[in-house]
Amino acid sequence: MTADRQTFVTHLECSMTGERYEADELHGLSRVGRPLLVRYDLDAVKAALPKATLEARQTDLWRWRELLPVRHTGNIVSLGEIETPLVPIPKSSGSANVLVKDEGRLPTGSFKARGLVMAVAMAKELGVTKIAMPTNGNAGAALAAYATRCGIETIVLAPQETPEVNIREIAAQGARVYRVNGQIDDCGAIVGRGAAEGRWFDFSTLKEPYRIEGKKTMGLELAAQFGWKLPDAIFYPTGGGTGLIGMWKAFDELEKLGWIGSERPRMYAIQASGCAPIVRAFEAGEEHAERWEDAATVAAGIRVPKAVGDFLILRAVRESGGKALGVGDPAILKAVDDCAKKDGLLLCPEGGATLAAYREALRTGEVDEEERVVLFNCATGLKYPMPEANAAVDRFAEIDLGAL
Amino acid sequence: MTADRQTFVTHLECSMTGERYEADELHGLSRVGRPLLVRYDLDAVKAALPKATLEARQTDLWRWRELLPVRHTGNIVSLGEIETPLVPIPKSSGSANVLVKDEGRLPTGSFKARGLVMAVAMAKELGVTKIAMPTNGNAGAALAAYATRCGIETIVLAPQETPEVNIREIAAQGARVYRVNGQIDDCGAIVGRGAAEGRWFDFSTLKEPYRIEGKKTMGLELAAQFGWKLPDAIFYPTGGGTGLIGMWKAFDELEKLGWIGSERPRMYAIQASGCAPIVRAFEAGEEHAERWEDAATVAAGIRVPKAVGDFLILRAVRESGGKALGVGDPAILKAVDDCAKKDGLLLCPEGGATLAAYREALRTGEVDEEERVVLFNCATGLKYPMPEANAAVDRFAEIDLGAL
Ligand SMILES: Cc1ncc(COP(=O)(O)O)c(C=O)c1O
Ligand SMILES: Cc1ncc(COP(=O)(O)O)c(C=O)c1O
Repeated sequence: MTADRQTFVTHLECSMTGERYEADELHGLSRVGRPLLVRYDLDAVKAALPKATLEARQTDLWRWRELLPVRHTGNIVSLGEIETPLVPIPKSSGSANVLVKDEGRLPTGSFKARGLVMAVAMAKELGVTKIAMPTNGNAGAALAAYATRCGIETIVLAPQETPEVNIREIAAQGARVYRVNGQIDDCGAIVGRGAAEGRWFDFSTLKEPYRIEGKKTMGLELAAQFGWKLPDAIFYPTGGGTGLIGMWKAFDELEKLGWIGSERPRMYAIQASGCAPIVRAFEAGEEHAERWEDAATVAAGIRVPKAVGDFLILRAVRESGGKALGVGDPAILKAVDDCAKKDGLLLCPEGGATLAAYREALRTGEVDEEERVVLFNCATGLKYPMPEANAAVDRFAEIDLGAL
Repeated sequence: MTADRQTFVTHLECSMTGERYEADELHGLSRVGRPLLVRYDLDAVKAALPKATLEARQTDLWRWRELLPVRHTGNIVSLGEIETPLVPIPKSSGSANVLVKDEGRLPTGSFKARGLVMAVAMAKELGVTKIAMPTNGNAGAALAAYATRCGIETIVLAPQETPEVNIREIAAQGARVYRVNGQIDDCGAIVGRGAAEGRWFDFSTLKEPYRIEGKKTMGLELAAQFGWKLPDAIFYPTGGGTGLIGMWKAFDELEKLGWIGSERPRMYAIQASGCAPIVRAFEAGEEHAERWEDAATVAAGIRVPKAVGDFLILRAVRESGGKALGVGDPAILKAVDDCAKKDGLLLCPEGGATLAAYREALRTGEVDEEERVVLFNCATGLKYPMPEANAAVDRFAEIDLGAL
């Protein structure tokens, strides 16, 4: 995992204007306030890394080292970023060709580990000593774990309604955590204010350039797991959208390496009907998405009223021939329940949203049963409140076993 | 994962008397009431499976197929049993050579998935349609998930004090779950009574022969991960002891295959001082362990007053030159807290027990800092109550950022 390997970053580039920024310097957003994308010398990667070499490596996140930004092995911070498995859910999905990518197996129980392991390693590499970040729960936990591990001081701000389990996890892993009377973008505004005053470095989604590089590994992994023939469609629960944008970037880089062709999966951005700014913008044909007021959904990870990378999400979805789709909370909860009761797999609500959207898409003919589809379950279902169980204590010593 | 591969089971054998039992038939305990062990034609495995072939396979649990009992690929039930990572915890352990085997990454968040995936696959193979099992939480969750997935009816009995999150997880995954006014062996007694009446098949630890074969994969995996040179010591949180017994069996089989030599790690069976029957028996030089009365510890997974495989645990510990060690709840909680706060890894209390025991062993000179030691973290820390966090909601819009 920590073997010394060549790195190939050439520069960074504004995702809106294409303006060039130097590598190996600390950056936030671009001059026009948009995300920066990391660029590599892909011809050199192609020469240095035969596909067979990659395939012979251990299958963790760091096997992709040549396509990642960390220069010095000593800056790698790791808690065991394994390749996450693909689990079929034939009964609850209604198709033998649907696979759940179970991201809950990553450190701190969510795919946020992918982005944060990279962002923290780069912060370490670039000399950052204090970080602040807004979170709906999972990102804060991943940041806390990795930053703690390499001794970076961390402040995490979470919306008031964030579940207690998330707050405790973040605090247990050594970050200072505060609840804020507002939504995630209100938390982000405070973080931004402090960053502008030079109090800390701003780690908000897409506001530093490296989380997306970590999330990109979801796309790299999928390509390898599918034997370099991508699936027909990907359903991704979309909040800030880093994962979707990252996968789209990964496919592009893999094509330039000649490891995949030009075919792409249809990308479906799934949101909750109670907070669906991307769906609204998609349907209206807009390039950007306006803030969603009074956001509310059980799927807290996708309760993101305003995404700084909105145009990147919308662009990827449209180019891919996919859609942005909304699903209601009752359908989400029903999907979680069905998947656990029929296929034995406990999804998080955001994962449930992708299953609910898939089932609706199957019904309307947007996808068909024969298509190979990946649903992203971005966190372990264990972090979320489960329905009450009826398990009364009884004087079992005397019970009639026939009644069980 | 489901590739057709040869299987090599020859028979089963009583762990106490060596009496032979037929393979491919349903078995519980042996005639003298002791666990049955599965035996393989290891010479034939050796001929059929060169080490290089094994090494070229995907690293999940099913790569070990030739050393596992399932005959027909169609009976394999899987939720993605990945190889679990080894995570260093230099700061909280005080040694760069301590690695945590993070079993919380398995399906349903614990290593119980290893045993239950195997036992359920064999139950399916042998035509079982109804299963009952006692649990302290994690085993019930794993059973529920796998049994649900292949349509086997399941009843789970848990001690009264089992945390609500475990009860809910079991129920969510489709099992019927009941709380019992007693300890795990009281639950086991009820299960046994129903089994004797022909109501269901008894899935208690070591009372059916295949859970141990699944747990054995912890030892197989460790050998492969350590490049076929086993670590110097293994600290295992011991309840029923299936994992320890399974690893010991695995090392024996690997030696017969010629993949490892005769050296063995010192096996440390770790228990909580509030429920330490194995420690007491070890210290008294006994072959069997008496029931521990009034068992009490925060580490519910090792709150097992009486283990049917007691003599197998004690034998392995002694043969290996290891020990059975007890640690108090305060040391357990302190270890969990330190590991999260210093190394960013949230252990379960049972994992915390192994860290607490390691630190004490380092202090007393039982192990030294240079030795390569593996601590088993058998479940994700997310399933357990975490300390309260102080994260008051504030009118953050007006807050003094300097105070953060
Ligand atoms: C479980 C879960 N799913 C989905 C998301 C949305 O991810 P993204 O910001 O990449 O859109 C989050 C983000 O918090 C999450 O925690
Ligand atoms: C987290 C955890 N650790 C350890 C154990 C003990 O395992 P064994 O029965 O193999 O001794 C259990 C069993 O419930 C457990 O859940």
